[in-house]
Amino acid sequence: MREKNIVWHHHQLSKEERSSQKGQKQCVLWFTGLSGSGKSTIANALEAKLYEMGQHTYLLDGDNIRHGLNKDLGFSDEDRVENIRRIGEVSKLFVDAGLIVISAFISPFHSDRQIVRNLVESGEFLEVFIDTPLEICEQRDPKGLYQKARKGEIPTFTGISSPYEAPATPEIHILTAEKSIDELVNMIISYLQEKGYLYASTY
Amino acid sequence: MREKNIVWHHHQLSKEERSSQKGQKQCVLWFTGLSGSGKSTIANALEAKLYEMGQHTYLLDGDNIRHGLNKDLGFSDEDRVENIRRIGEVSKLFVDAGLIVISAFISPFHSDRQIVRNLVESGEFLEVFIDTPLEICEQRDPKGLYQKARKGEIPTFTGISSPYEAPATPEIHILTAEKSIDELVNMIISYLQEKGYLYASTY
Repeated sequence: MREKNIVWHHHQLSKEERSSQKGQKQCVLWFTGLSGSGKSTIANALEAKLYEMGQHTYLLDGDNIRHGLNKDLGFSDEDRVENIRRIGEVSKLFVDAGLIVISAFISPFHSDRQIVRNLVESGEFLEVFIDTPLEICEQRDPKGLYQKARKGEIPTFTGISSPYEAPATPEIHILTAEKSIDELVNMIISYLQEKGYLYASTY
Repeated sequence: MREKNIVWHHHQLSKEERSSQKGQKQCVLWFTGLSGSGKSTIANALEAKLYEMGQHTYLLDGDNIRHGLNKDLGFSDEDRVENIRRIGEVSKLFVDAGLIVISAFISPFHSDRQIVRNLVESGEFLEVFIDTPLEICEQRDPKGLYQKARKGEIPTFTGISSPYEAPATPEIHILTAEKSIDELVNMIISYLQEKGYLYASTY
């Protein structure tokens, strides 16, 4: 690089440039709810719908985090906090990239969710409470985990032997009972539209 | 969620859907080179240029990784490997999101870079060797680090007291001497175009 490059204008892309290029305001939709509440199903359906609308998203969940970035972590209290901290930091990077991040983890403790909320800017953290009664989650039991927990085969299980601290004031409160997935997804989309998160020109 | 939803078609967005939406093939441009070689400067200029072309990128560097995700890591050999492993896993997530990821870290060891190459699919890892002679890097010494290293104030410093293993067969070899930043950026863009990584319709 010759002397002439010293006058080269150093431009660092901003978060706003990245998100406006994508027709949206960057944010993390932080899904929280019991095992079996429908977090993954709703998150995937929401992502598919936003994609159809021309929006740019990314979904963080157990599938892509547990066996990758956080594969060195176990289930101790210390590791649980580190697990959420890293997911929070990664969410922040994706927010900085201008994306709408959807994260789908039980995240039962208020303090852990607060850590992530504090990592990003005001208006970038949207807590989405997937509110399904424990009885229904346990009845569904898609992975047979509640049954194992009841038998004592899983020592610490949210809702059975460990508390779930429901969000007191989530940005979006999704009562899943008696609603179709489409209806639930549309509730979240409506919130995002009303609050000005979506302005892609392709729909 | 009522019974009717059991027939709801579960569609998980694919990496290819996310990247084709963005008019590109996802990849990580893994910059490696000595301190002061120009990695950050070229990476930022490349990102700005790709943005102008309508491409979707994200830059990972010390600024957004060291004080966030990896703030718990020091400079021991073990931490160095964990540092690169996490950057690799995060790069993989961004690649999965369909983005062109640019990472700018010295990453002096072949084995560390190989870890990241192995994390992603064939054709998704592009090693970019920012090849600037040590004498020039030391002469520039933008952060005064070489001076400190020569005085023994930094015990382990790449190029002085610790080896830099130059890539044997980088996908892109950038000899910086006697070239302008624009010329260097265009070399990388040309590679991406020739190999079919860029096909946004906006340029």
